[in-house]
Amino acid sequence: MKHNYLNNTSLNEAKEIYYSHLKAVGLAARSEVVAVREAGGRVLKDAAYARICSPHYNACAMDGIAVCAADTFAASEKIPLTLAPESYTVVDTGDPLPKGCDAVIMVEDLIETESGEVRIIAPVRPWQNVRQVGEDICMGDMLAPSGTVLSPSLCGALLAGGVTEIEVLAKPVFGIIPTGDEIVAPTADPKEGEIIEFNSTIFASYLESHGAAVKVYPITKDVKSDILAVVERALCECDGVLICAGSSAGRDDYTAEIIASLGTVLVHGIAIKPGKPAILGEAQSKPVIGLPGYPVSAIVIMEEIVREVIDLYNNKTPSAPPTVKAVLGKKVVSSLKYSEYIRVALGSIGGALSAVPLGRGAGVITSFTKADGILLLPQNCEGLEAGTTVDVRLLKPLCEIENTLIVTGSHDPLIDEVADALAKEGAPFRVCSTHVGSMGAIYAIQGGLAHLGGVHLLDSESGTYNTSYIERFFPEGGAVLLDGVGRVQGLMVQKGNPLGIKTFQDIAAHRYVNRQRGAGTRILCDYLLEKNGIAPEDVEGYANEEYTHTAVAALIAAGNADAGLGIYSAAKMYDLDFIPICTETYQFLVDERYRDAPQVQAFLKMLHSPAFAKRLEALGGYALEK
Amino acid sequence: MKHNYLNNTSLNEAKEIYYSHLKAVGLAARSEVVAVREAGGRVLKDAAYARICSPHYNACAMDGIAVCAADTFAASEKIPLTLAPESYTVVDTGDPLPKGCDAVIMVEDLIETESGEVRIIAPVRPWQNVRQVGEDICMGDMLAPSGTVLSPSLCGALLAGGVTEIEVLAKPVFGIIPTGDEIVAPTADPKEGEIIEFNSTIFASYLESHGAAVKVYPITKDVKSDILAVVERALCECDGVLICAGSSAGRDDYTAEIIASLGTVLVHGIAIKPGKPAILGEAQSKPVIGLPGYPVSAIVIMEEIVREVIDLYNNKTPSAPPTVKAVLGKKVVSSLKYSEYIRVALGSIGGALSAVPLGRGAGVITSFTKADGILLLPQNCEGLEAGTTVDVRLLKPLCEIENTLIVTGSHDPLIDEVADALAKEGAPFRVCSTHVGSMGAIYAIQGGLAHLGGVHLLDSESGTYNTSYIERFFPEGGAVLLDGVGRVQGLMVQKGNPLGIKTFQDIAAHRYVNRQRGAGTRILCDYLLEKNGIAPEDVEGYANEEYTHTAVAALIAAGNADAGLGIYSAAKMYDLDFIPICTETYQFLVDERYRDAPQVQAFLKMLHSPAFAKRLEALGGYALEK
Repeated sequence: MKHNYLNNTSLNEAKEIYYSHLKAVGLAARSEVVAVREAGGRVLKDAAYARICSPHYNACAMDGIAVCAADTFAASEKIPLTLAPESYTVVDTGDPLPKGCDAVIMVEDLIETESGEVRIIAPVRPWQNVRQVGEDICMGDMLAPSGTVLSPSLCGALLAGGVTEIEVLAKPVFGIIPTGDEIVAPTADPKEGEIIEFNSTIFASYLESHGAAVKVYPITKDVKSDILAVVERALCECDGVLICAGSSAGRDDYTAEIIASLGTVLVHGIAIKPGKPAILGEAQSKPVIGLPGYPVSAIVIMEEIVREVIDLYNNKTPSAPPTVKAVLGKKVVSSLKYSEYIRVALGSIGGALSAVPLGRGAGVITSFTKADGILLLPQNCEGLEAGTTVDVRLLKPLCEIENTLIVTGSHDPLIDEVADALAKEGAPFRVCSTHVGSMGAIYAIQGGLAHLGGVHLLDSESGTYNTSYIERFFPEGGAVLLDGVGRVQGLMVQKGNPLGIKTFQDIAAHRYVNRQRGAGTRILCDYLLEKNGIAPEDVEGYANEEYTHTAVAALIAAGNADAGLGIYSAAKMYDLDFIPICTETYQFLVDERYRDAPQVQAFLKMLHSPAFAKRLEALGGYALEK
Repeated sequence: MKHNYLNNTSLNEAKEIYYSHLKAVGLAARSEVVAVREAGGRVLKDAAYARICSPHYNACAMDGIAVCAADTFAASEKIPLTLAPESYTVVDTGDPLPKGCDAVIMVEDLIETESGEVRIIAPVRPWQNVRQVGEDICMGDMLAPSGTVLSPSLCGALLAGGVTEIEVLAKPVFGIIPTGDEIVAPTADPKEGEIIEFNSTIFASYLESHGAAVKVYPITKDVKSDILAVVERALCECDGVLICAGSSAGRDDYTAEIIASLGTVLVHGIAIKPGKPAILGEAQSKPVIGLPGYPVSAIVIMEEIVREVIDLYNNKTPSAPPTVKAVLGKKVVSSLKYSEYIRVALGSIGGALSAVPLGRGAGVITSFTKADGILLLPQNCEGLEAGTTVDVRLLKPLCEIENTLIVTGSHDPLIDEVADALAKEGAPFRVCSTHVGSMGAIYAIQGGLAHLGGVHLLDSESGTYNTSYIERFFPEGGAVLLDGVGRVQGLMVQKGNPLGIKTFQDIAAHRYVNRQRGAGTRILCDYLLEKNGIAPEDVEGYANEEYTHTAVAALIAAGNADAGLGIYSAAKMYDLDFIPICTETYQFLVDERYRDAPQVQAFLKMLHSPAFAKRLEALGGYALEK
């Protein structure tokens, strides 16, 4: 078993090495001539100059008569002037000014007599009501310098200036080569061991939205000669090549070797997490990049490296992405060995911007889907405490983030359903939900990190839900509970209940899958264990913590566990058997200051609407509270 | 002559009337099913749910051996454990976890013995090095609500969740119908009386960049039945129709009549300048809009009305465009009758943002090309004084505006040439130039409105340039003159000098075209008039003021005037005869605080570079100062 260890080049050093090499080998955009009509959004290769004036002739600016201004100087209200027919010409707006004329009298200012003569009571100045040659654009004027992106109005100005075709930078074409024995083209029904190849779709969409064109090659097996052949072909057909996966140093990782055989490997291994096993290479003066197989790692390399390579092609100074200051909502730990690329959800609560880190694994593609921004921890940073003010790169427009209702706490699919129902209605805000458990909801409301927090916290002494917790954590008040739903909690077990599980007590004999500490369902589990006299260490799988009802259901359905506590709707979704245990009160905790906020009220109104009752019925296991 | 007078509905009222009508008639997007692979940037019609888990099977996360974790619990460094071949399976990353196994031991942690047995010195936990089912995405989870724009990572998440096709909103198709007897398709060589039709290109580019599709119809003459036929066809083929021009109330303005005959005219005439003669109509539940013929007026209606109609189709809440606070650099007067849509150049000088109004005519398309933002004066505002803090809507990214060297003052094509040469070199900033004359440069530097100001101010007493002005206007210092160029000023006259003009004195006998007050060339003109004992009122055309050398040259070339003062390069550009009068010192005035700014230094370095000397030579009439 071969081991080619990677280097750990710092991100900035890797960029410096790579971009200066690409510049040195003469990386440059091709150009092409296109019709200005279709040039919107393209980048000017050279400065564009007006070839004609606009207007290119003296144009009448009004409907009326064209005259020689000097002939009208005697006119006044007291002594109107009659113009002989041979001294004027009837004109329309846009007509060329007739020879010998230098002004136009508006039709509204003419007194037509019965004899067909025209009378005026005021003179006109020379060039009055005339659009003189070059009034808007003068021939020879530079309309835009090299490198300008053609806006709609610039396209118009070019045409007005007689420029009908223009040389623009050609979009660089990137070839994407997915490789791997186990990957298959996207399918709704993959077999065991088949991994759906979706990275090339992510990269293609990313490249296209950043001004590049894309050619995706068929999936190539992990056979060195096969991959080499496709890379050689892509080098002929494209301006740059992205090889997906095989960039690490394992047995079947040929990418570095292949790039080295065709050109130069400049960097192999970047001190960034995720993203480390990347290869920055060059062949035939073209960038050839080996991307990590994990999608999140690959997206980081796209964002950090490939984006700037596209800018190099477009002769554009890489612009710093827009950043905002935000207060870190949760502690972040880091290693000194890597920069960390942390996806965060941004929330705007009472005018303050908070950043909450999302999942950090290299495989968790949804951490990018849900991310509003990126917190880049430098390599020499050990981590940051909650409450630190940090710079966050925006992935979404700030106005969208500021216009978001943040719901956190206990996981329940109904939150997403409300969000969707509001979106369908055209609500003027979005809903962002994260799952941090019921106790997490309390801390989030305390810390000003969310507007609403979903809670279902059982007080084992009184048997009531939520209220005693609020009294304990908000002794001075300031937070209130809003009507939510009743929902059925129970044990999810495999379909047909093959192990014959009947009551909660039975879990001691089987493999359990648990929820994370702080989750309302975990508190229920611990209460039930105590009530039944079962020690946690006697429950196999007690330490296996999941964050959502669906994650628990998925593991039971897959046979990784035999039982787990969860809500009826999750069991139904996975076609599991369900042993009801209790009906609990799921409510929303809100900071008193935001109780009457229109977004909070709209959320509650939707939740309790007759239309939404139908959605709850379809999910199953809910009862609406008044 | 017919006069259908327009109404003067306020902008907000017009929007309210129009959008509520469109909603009432059920304006809604069509939808279509597309492959997720090609869905980047599209808008989800409904919420998207994962159809499978990701991973959809328990996947080995490492190369190594799969085991039952319980079999390894006895292993320790002191007492290594030997695993019998039948108790493990060799696996690669991504392989399905074999039946009966619940963990993977990494290849790096294995001690292979000669007998082929495998020894370990540490146990593994259940599910260690295994990517369990649903680790990233759980079947049934909502991946995104209705109305979400598909980002690259969301496309990836959908494919990972087994969703290969998705229903997205269809882009609304807008039909664009250019009308008019005088307009012709874009050409490099239009005849007199032919107006180049570039509005449809502006609209098409605008619509496409805002998420709509476009169908441009051929130019239709001003014949009512012809236009009606095309509108009817467009109503069949498109989701909305834009009729270009004919929207006013003149003789040949049929648009309102045509819309009324097919449906309803809701608004005719909006109290906004430019943009007033717009028609907002509806037919067959589709928007039919009559756009003004002047491009700037039409762009205002695109920006204010059509953009939100596209948002209506996309079920998107129209988002307020991003705005910034800026200090008005020049007084603005307005009428109480209209809202005013003022295009401004934004400049960031020493951290403060200033807004300088650009040309305000409805025909001046370059005022949009050069605009960084929009200042919308409300209808009840009489105007604003210089120095007022105003809200400006951004048309360009703020970081681009903040990264701009602002050069103002006397017009000289060399400024644009330097800007282009810097852009070609990949300079990390842009150059923005405006023409306000040499005195304007002094006021701009005094007011903190520009970094550099081009000046060529003759002191008639001493015969020197610039220095005495700086002493007078900056008595306390604070501004310095930087080396510029020498350039030849003279009289531009028609080619071949048919009128036999020899000296400046001759202008009294001919038609002159002047520069605006405050321009260095105007000061030179006034000096020469006085020196030659000519009274301004004896010069025909003295009151005709133009802002640039090329505008003066264009008017002489067109025969609108016989002579004008200007620089040699402008005469050369227009192939005019040139009578040299003097060589003047054109310098750059700079606020001392920015003298050493890298952008200022880069500008000067380029101006004095050997490569740039060639550009100056091509322009003609320049001599580089040391």
